[in-house]
Amino acid sequence: MLEKVELLMYNYIKDVDSYAIALYNHIPKGKRLRAKLVLKISGDSIESQKLAAIIELIHAASLLHDDVIDEAKTRRGTPSINATYDSKTAVMLGDILYSKAYLELNNFSPFIAKSISDAVTKLSVGEMLDVEFSKEIQLDEAKYFDMIYKKTAVLIEATAATAASLANKDSQKFALYGKNLGLAFQIIDDVLDITADEKTLGKPALADFKEGKTTLPYIYLFESLNSDDKKKLLTLYKKELTDDERIWLKGKMQESGAVIKSIEVAVKLGKEALQAIAEYKNEALEKVIKDMIEREF
Amino acid sequence: MLEKVELLMYNYIKDVDSYAIALYNHIPKGKRLRAKLVLKISGDSIESQKLAAIIELIHAASLLHDDVIDEAKTRRGTPSINATYDSKTAVMLGDILYSKAYLELNNFSPFIAKSISDAVTKLSVGEMLDVEFSKEIQLDEAKYFDMIYKKTAVLIEATAATAASLANKDSQKFALYGKNLGLAFQIIDDVLDITADEKTLGKPALADFKEGKTTLPYIYLFESLNSDDKKKLLTLYKKELTDDERIWLKGKMQESGAVIKSIEVAVKLGKEALQAIAEYKNEALEKVIKDMIEREF
Repeated sequence: MLEKVELLMYNYIKDVDSYAIALYNHIPKGKRLRAKLVLKISGDSIESQKLAAIIELIHAASLLHDDVIDEAKTRRGTPSINATYDSKTAVMLGDILYSKAYLELNNFSPFIAKSISDAVTKLSVGEMLDVEFSKEIQLDEAKYFDMIYKKTAVLIEATAATAASLANKDSQKFALYGKNLGLAFQIIDDVLDITADEKTLGKPALADFKEGKTTLPYIYLFESLNSDDKKKLLTLYKKELTDDERIWLKGKMQESGAVIKSIEVAVKLGKEALQAIAEYKNEALEKVIKDMIEREF
Repeated sequence: MLEKVELLMYNYIKDVDSYAIALYNHIPKGKRLRAKLVLKISGDSIESQKLAAIIELIHAASLLHDDVIDEAKTRRGTPSINATYDSKTAVMLGDILYSKAYLELNNFSPFIAKSISDAVTKLSVGEMLDVEFSKEIQLDEAKYFDMIYKKTAVLIEATAATAASLANKDSQKFALYGKNLGLAFQIIDDVLDITADEKTLGKPALADFKEGKTTLPYIYLFESLNSDDKKKLLTLYKKELTDDERIWLKGKMQESGAVIKSIEVAVKLGKEALQAIAEYKNEALEKVIKDMIEREF
C-alpha cells in the first residue's frame, strides 16, 4: 500500500521538473505516519493514496523548511538537504513540494482542500512560535499546548479528518483522534528527551532545554520547585550541562513527578483518542495509540 | 482601490498570528503590479480585491524566499527581511504568506484556484532554474525563455487569466496578455541591466552577467561574435569587470545589435499582448504595455 503512495509522490514531483526530482530522491523517507493514517482510515483506494501522497509531500516540505530554520545538520540520522546542499536548495525544494501538493489538493472536495490548507497555515505559525519561544524561557502551559498543537498535531488532525471525510466517516471524531494522537506524540517525544539516553534517541539527550525549548516536563518541574531550586533551574537554561547538573536535573524531574505528570497527560489524550473512534473498532488505529502509550521511558 | 487590497492583505495575516503581522509590516510594499492588473481587468468588486490581495501575498512570499535563495541584502532599495532579521525569519514568514493565500484561494472557483496553484508550482521551479542556470554560462535561447516564463511571466499570466474569469471575460486572451507582458517586462529588465546606469537602476549596472545570469542580450551577442570575441566574452563571465572591459562589452552589445534585437523581441511580445485584448478597448491595460515599451534605453 505504502509503495503506491511513494510512487505517487515521486511521480507528482517528476511531473514538475527534472531538477526537482533529482533533489527529491535525496530526501530521507521517514516513517510515513500520516500516509499510514490515511490508508488505515479511508482504505486503499486511489483517492486515498493520492491524499496520503499530498499530505506526505506537505510534511516533507515543512521538514525541509524546518531544517533550514533550525539549522539542523541531520534528519532521521542522515544529513539534511540543507547540510548536503545548502539552505537555498532546501527552501526551493520545499516550495516545489508545497506548491505541487496544493495544486493536487484542488482535485479534492472543498472540505478536504480547506482543512489541509488551514492546517498548513497553522503549521507555519507553529514553527514560528517554536522559534519565538526558544528565545527565552517559556513557562506558560497554555502557550506550550498551542505551540505543539500547531507545530505537530494540526497536520495529523487534518490528516485524520480528511481521510475520514473521504470514506464518509465522521470527520469530527477522527479529527479529535488525530489531534490527540499528535499532542500525545509530541509530549512523549519531549519526555524522552529527558528520560532516554543518547543511544535510544539517536541524538543527544537533554537537548531541548539547551536549545531553548521549555517543554511540558520543564513547565511542571518549575511549578513544583522551591524558590532556590527554581533559581537553579533558570541558570541551566540554554546551557551545556555538567555531569552534576545533568544528574540534578534528571533527579528533580523524577522526584518532583514532572515526568510522570507529563506522561499521564499524554496517556489521557491517548485514551480520549481511542474513545473518539471506539465505535469504528479500527484495530490498526487503536494499535497506533497503544504503541505510543506503552513506549518505555 | 489599492488601499482596500492593502487592508485585506494586512487583515489576512493579522487573522493568522500576532507575531506574523509584526513581521509582515516590515516587508517593503512594491508596485503592486499584479493587484493593479486584477482591478483593471475585473473591476473593483470585493471578490476582485480579495483575488488581488491573495496574488500579492503569493508574490510577496515568493520574493521573501527569492531573497533568501539569492542572499539579497536589499529589496526595492530597503533592507530585505533576511538582511534585517535572518534567513529563517524570511522562510517562515514566506511560508505563512503562501499558506494563508492558498487557504483563501479555496473560496474561489476551481479554475481560479488551479490556475494560481499551477502558477506557483512553476514559479518555484523558475527560481530553481534561475539558480541552476547561474552555475555556468547558459546560451540556449529556449531555456532562457522557459526560465523567465516560469520565474516572472507565469504569475502575471495567471493573474490576468483569473481576473478575466472573475469578470466573465475570455481568460485565454487575458492569459496571453499577461504572459507576454511578463516576458517583455523581464526582457526589458535584462536589457536595462546593460544599457542603464547605476543611478537609474538603483543597483549596480552590468550585474547580471557577473552574477552568472546569461540574459537574452548576452545570448544574442554571443551568437553574433567572431571566435576571438566569443572567447573574450566567456572570460568575462562571473567576473568583476575593469573599466576597459565594461566599455568593450557595452560597445559590442550596441554594435552587434544584441540590445536592439532583444528590445524588438519585447516590443513584439507587447504588441501581441495588445492584440490579444484589443476587442476590450481597455485603455488602462493598453497603457501598461505602452509605458513598458516606451521606456528609455
